[in-house]
Amino acid sequence: MSSECVDNNVYVGRKFFMRYVLSVLMMFTLFRCKDVVIRARGSNISKAVLVAESCRYLIDAKYTSIDIGSAYIDLGGRRRILTTIKIVLSAPSKSGE
Amino acid sequence: MSSECVDNNVYVGRKFFMRYVLSVLMMFTLFRCKDVVIRARGSNISKAVLVAESCRYLIDAKYTSIDIGSAYIDLGGRRRILTTIKIVLSAPSKSGE
Repeated sequence: MSSECVDNNVYVGRKFFMRYVLSVLMMFTLFRCKDVVIRARGSNISKAVLVAESCRYLIDAKYTSIDIGSAYIDLGGRRRILTTIKIVLSAPSKSGE
Repeated sequence: MSSECVDNNVYVGRKFFMRYVLSVLMMFTLFRCKDVVIRARGSNISKAVLVAESCRYLIDAKYTSIDIGSAYIDLGGRRRILTTIKIVLSAPSKSGE
């Protein structure tokens, strides 16, 4: 009950998407974060969108902003483009509390 | 030269991403569209982001809006969630012309 929102970033990786959904839900309910940032790179972007949509479906979270961008990485001398996504979810308005 | 912008939607599917990039570039240059809408569903979302980022890199197109949503499909009686993305690219400002 004394837990605070320290880190509100969720990095979506190779795990099953429900892991990340649970992580977002925990940040909203347990740590009482105002907003949660979902980040992903490359082919995990579609999973990040699925995580965000699931959270919206489950707890009525709202999208504050959706940004896409790119980073460049060096891979053995070759410059590769790597796309990124950043979805900011804001907490659902609690009318009951 | 007499071509007009009739359809400005690009549906990203299973083809190589450069196909869709060329399609977007053609809409901007040949058909003189003001803006192009890139749409994708499911696991093609990450490819759509890559297409949009490539267009931004190549011709300096700007993002007007990025929306994510979901549709529901019936798959043998089971209701499945299907995420969608819609990226609106606006034409680069031409200072030379």
